[in-house]
Amino acid sequence: MPDGIKVPMPTLERLATYFSVLTDLKVRNIETISSADIETRTGVNAAQFRKDLSYFGEFGRPGIGYNVIELCSRISRILKLEKTQPVVIVGAGNLGSALAGYQPLRAENFRIVAVFDSNPRKIGAQLWSLTIKDVANIVEENKTLKAKIGIVAVPASVAQEVADRLVKAKVSTILNFAPTMLRLPEGVTVRNVDFVQELAVLSFHLPENG
Amino acid sequence: MPDGIKVPMPTLERLATYFSVLTDLKVRNIETISSADIETRTGVNAAQFRKDLSYFGEFGRPGIGYNVIELCSRISRILKLEKTQPVVIVGAGNLGSALAGYQPLRAENFRIVAVFDSNPRKIGAQLWSLTIKDVANIVEENKTLKAKIGIVAVPASVAQEVADRLVKAKVSTILNFAPTMLRLPEGVTVRNVDFVQELAVLSFHLPENG
Repeated sequence: MPDGIKVPMPTLERLATYFSVLTDLKVRNIETISSADIETRTGVNAAQFRKDLSYFGEFGRPGIGYNVIELCSRISRILKLEKTQPVVIVGAGNLGSALAGYQPLRAENFRIVAVFDSNPRKIGAQLWSLTIKDVANIVEENKTLKAKIGIVAVPASVAQEVADRLVKAKVSTILNFAPTMLRLPEGVTVRNVDFVQELAVLSFHLPENG
Repeated sequence: MPDGIKVPMPTLERLATYFSVLTDLKVRNIETISSADIETRTGVNAAQFRKDLSYFGEFGRPGIGYNVIELCSRISRILKLEKTQPVVIVGAGNLGSALAGYQPLRAENFRIVAVFDSNPRKIGAQLWSLTIKDVANIVEENKTLKAKIGIVAVPASVAQEVADRLVKAKVSTILNFAPTMLRLPEGVTVRNVDFVQELAVLSFHLPENG
């Protein structure tokens, strides 16, 4: 992929979707896929799929389709998913604990290397194979861990403070589960996962007289 | 809101974001907000915000801004969030358990009324204030529960089977956490939350030599 290419966010999100579907196909030993199959499996139409890939050069063969393993590995390179990425989680509550043990993350080259919390009753406790660490030490700890991806799994009221700490610890991308918008310095990328927002969108689609 | 109005999905998603931010402001007793404030807090530009609202009639006053409580309640009406929505979860693993106990859902009129699983060692066990039920009985159980929203929190390998059961149980909207695309009959709305996909998008933004 050419250096410094600017990829629009919707394209990037679709690439991540393709990657997810291709990984699933790979596991099930399916060798070839057409752009029509992609449409069925992702809801993204075939023309859009081809356009998304065109940012990154030539893919597939007309009338034959795409080799699943090859396409998966090329998208994986584009998304920089080839080497294992250390990830830190802040918040050892229900959600943080669930994420720390979430199998598909481990399978996909994301490795949870530490879970932090501020609760003295949690610090030092075991969570899966990890020992919960004090968030007060995160800047120091991350000098060794070198995680660039941080997950915020704390209540909204303390999420900004946690995000500030992550930035100080040189984390440059944040997955935020707290239902609040984080203010972050330029150069730090954030993605918000807001369960309430997702349910609100579904709620709109409920039948009127259900 | 006029009947049968067709709202584009991106508009709907932004409405849900505004709702989330406004709820936060309401809790903090902030009375008025300008579209510029909305821009700062959501990243959605002020013109887009005004355009999104224009689907649903007149809002706000020029030079004064929007009354937070009023705007929040109108968006809540648009998204049909006014009455409590019963929600069922399938999957009493780490993620399902975390979602069942997730405070912000309770605060926002979504009530988890049941958690189902297929594991005999889990069925009958207590989870928060609920007793885990057998997913084999979901069609029968939902005749009483009347949930229209279902959450799929099971591994990808069994997600389709679970979704089919939910549809049989007359659930019409699904929040899917399994990293797989569900095939659903027309009229059933699905939203996918894919943690791997989210991290993959962040991964793309990592500095080259971090």
